[in-house]
Amino acid sequence: MKVDGKDFRSIWYNSDTGKVQIIDQRWLPHEFRVVDLTTRAAFVTAIADMWVRGAPLIGATAAYGVAVEMARDASDASIVETWDVLHETRPTAINLRWALNDMTALLMPMPEEERAAAAMQRAHEIADEDVECNRMIGVHGLEIIKDIAAKKQPGEVVNILTHCNAGWLATVDWGTATSPMYHAHMAGIPVHIWVDETRPRNQGALLTAWEMNSHDIPHHLIVDNAGGHLMQHGQVDMVIVGTDRTTAHGDVCNKIGTYLKALAAQDNNVPFYVALPSPTIDWTVKDGVAEIPIEERDDSEVTHVQGKLADGTVGEVQISPDGTPGGNPAFDVTPRRLVTGLITERGICDASPEGLAAMFPERVLG
Amino acid sequence: MKVDGKDFRSIWYNSDTGKVQIIDQRWLPHEFRVVDLTTRAAFVTAIADMWVRGAPLIGATAAYGVAVEMARDASDASIVETWDVLHETRPTAINLRWALNDMTALLMPMPEEERAAAAMQRAHEIADEDVECNRMIGVHGLEIIKDIAAKKQPGEVVNILTHCNAGWLATVDWGTATSPMYHAHMAGIPVHIWVDETRPRNQGALLTAWEMNSHDIPHHLIVDNAGGHLMQHGQVDMVIVGTDRTTAHGDVCNKIGTYLKALAAQDNNVPFYVALPSPTIDWTVKDGVAEIPIEERDDSEVTHVQGKLADGTVGEVQISPDGTPGGNPAFDVTPRRLVTGLITERGICDASPEGLAAMFPERVLG
Repeated sequence: MKVDGKDFRSIWYNSDTGKVQIIDQRWLPHEFRVVDLTTRAAFVTAIADMWVRGAPLIGATAAYGVAVEMARDASDASIVETWDVLHETRPTAINLRWALNDMTALLMPMPEEERAAAAMQRAHEIADEDVECNRMIGVHGLEIIKDIAAKKQPGEVVNILTHCNAGWLATVDWGTATSPMYHAHMAGIPVHIWVDETRPRNQGALLTAWEMNSHDIPHHLIVDNAGGHLMQHGQVDMVIVGTDRTTAHGDVCNKIGTYLKALAAQDNNVPFYVALPSPTIDWTVKDGVAEIPIEERDDSEVTHVQGKLADGTVGEVQISPDGTPGGNPAFDVTPRRLVTGLITERGICDASPEGLAAMFPERVLG
Repeated sequence: MKVDGKDFRSIWYNSDTGKVQIIDQRWLPHEFRVVDLTTRAAFVTAIADMWVRGAPLIGATAAYGVAVEMARDASDASIVETWDVLHETRPTAINLRWALNDMTALLMPMPEEERAAAAMQRAHEIADEDVECNRMIGVHGLEIIKDIAAKKQPGEVVNILTHCNAGWLATVDWGTATSPMYHAHMAGIPVHIWVDETRPRNQGALLTAWEMNSHDIPHHLIVDNAGGHLMQHGQVDMVIVGTDRTTAHGDVCNKIGTYLKALAAQDNNVPFYVALPSPTIDWTVKDGVAEIPIEERDDSEVTHVQGKLADGTVGEVQISPDGTPGGNPAFDVTPRRLVTGLITERGICDASPEGLAAMFPERVLG
């Protein structure tokens, strides 16, 4: 999407220099830094230290990492070792594992001398497939926004609330929850985004607000506490969030606090949509609240807040008394009864076993 | 309550030195500073610059401010001028106005030479009345906690979630929402408090966590997003919050985000109680969502976060991109249908016109 009027992806191949480039997201929103990744070690660092984040982007980055390594050493041993070192960076990231397996399956049967070119070609495809998947989420989500706009006065703003960053920075382009917003903006529908700051890591404030700012979409940053009040007063027309994992029954595991917004949406008859690429559906899980283990992260994320200091450097403040412990569940589960619909790359379906099965009949288990 | 094992109020008369002392709350939780207020100008600064905050404490501080000024100049003109300069510090604070009117009505009819002593006496009474009111809230609230504990195994912890700081730092002692917690702790009932950090101003992290820490009550600081997840998993036995204003019908206006917690409590059958001294009931208002105007505060509270810097000084970080505007509604209204009960100094009643009228029959309007 746009940064200062120029189109960017979160990872791309620069054909002028022959190098893979990324946005080093650690410095956002305060600095926009583009860096070359020219060695496997650089890819390892970029993924492990979260220069890039977001499941789809991690997968694409790993694919490019394999391609770059193949240009140096395309041996079988190199393929195996590359799988290992890249996989170790974020071992629970499902897209990372998928991308590495895909690359390995492609390359292993191939003569060594063909591997470098084939790997780079496949990395491009993986990136493009992600872009296309997210673009289609936007195409389908746009229809919902159009319907809401059609019930308003001409030119009246459609207010959309979102939580965390399910934006293009978490994917290769478009994002998931943000894709319908970008599509609506580009279609000339006036949208305004309420951006939850999304404590504890503030991905909304740091990333989603930066995306909206960079693409010139009107928005306000709000604290996570504010959404219910805004909905009570008719200031939210719809909610769109992303998801880390959707169960086969339609429950939605997403960043902590999503459930509270879903409750408020239901209480105020505000449509609550979840945008998801189908690979995030976990067909092995049914009841999300009962079955999905929730990661408990370090409590320093709760007791400390990062940002830009008065001197312009990035630092942090401690908000709590010395000695107060923090509790830090990273995700919560929104039961399907609170979800108006799931926006997938194939279209919009009910958050139900039947809705998902009808949309993805070939993937349903047992 | 206790600070390092010693009993404190938030304002008190030091009979050794003959001076009024307060805790300068601007430095909490990182420093515990006690200061003398010896001139009217000092009281004005302490209230205006929020060295003290919380409606009941502001009222008591103003009363002491009048008393200190009477010792210097007890003329009629001084009474009038003191009303003006103190009232101007926080003109919307209802307890401030009430305390100043009360002092003026007491002092004006009195001979000048009796005013200083009478004013100090009345200031003590106002402080003691607040303490007694909050103590009774705790006595009544304790019964609810006892009932919950009685349904558990002996020694099993009662988990209570609270939002913002309705603690002793906002009153003269005990606090409102915290009073039942202190009473339970002192009665030997094992309680554990989930303290919402309460963005944007972080009063939970800065003040409630400090209170719990100082009084040795087990607690964890959590982000405002986490409460729903904890309730889904049986980790919250009850919620107790304070209120800035309760309507005659039982709707509760409190710090932004309270409504979201009430929704989660209802969705998970967790009792949701509001502790309130009866002066915070606004008998002129019925429907809180429709009738109560919500203050929109400066957006720097959303875009910036204060805390302790690495060098130990207090500073702030900017979490958002330059140019992103913030939306900052400071309060929300929890409809009475979500409130299990109101804990007042007279006892516990339903959050309903009938419940409040039965508890305070002499105050009902029309």
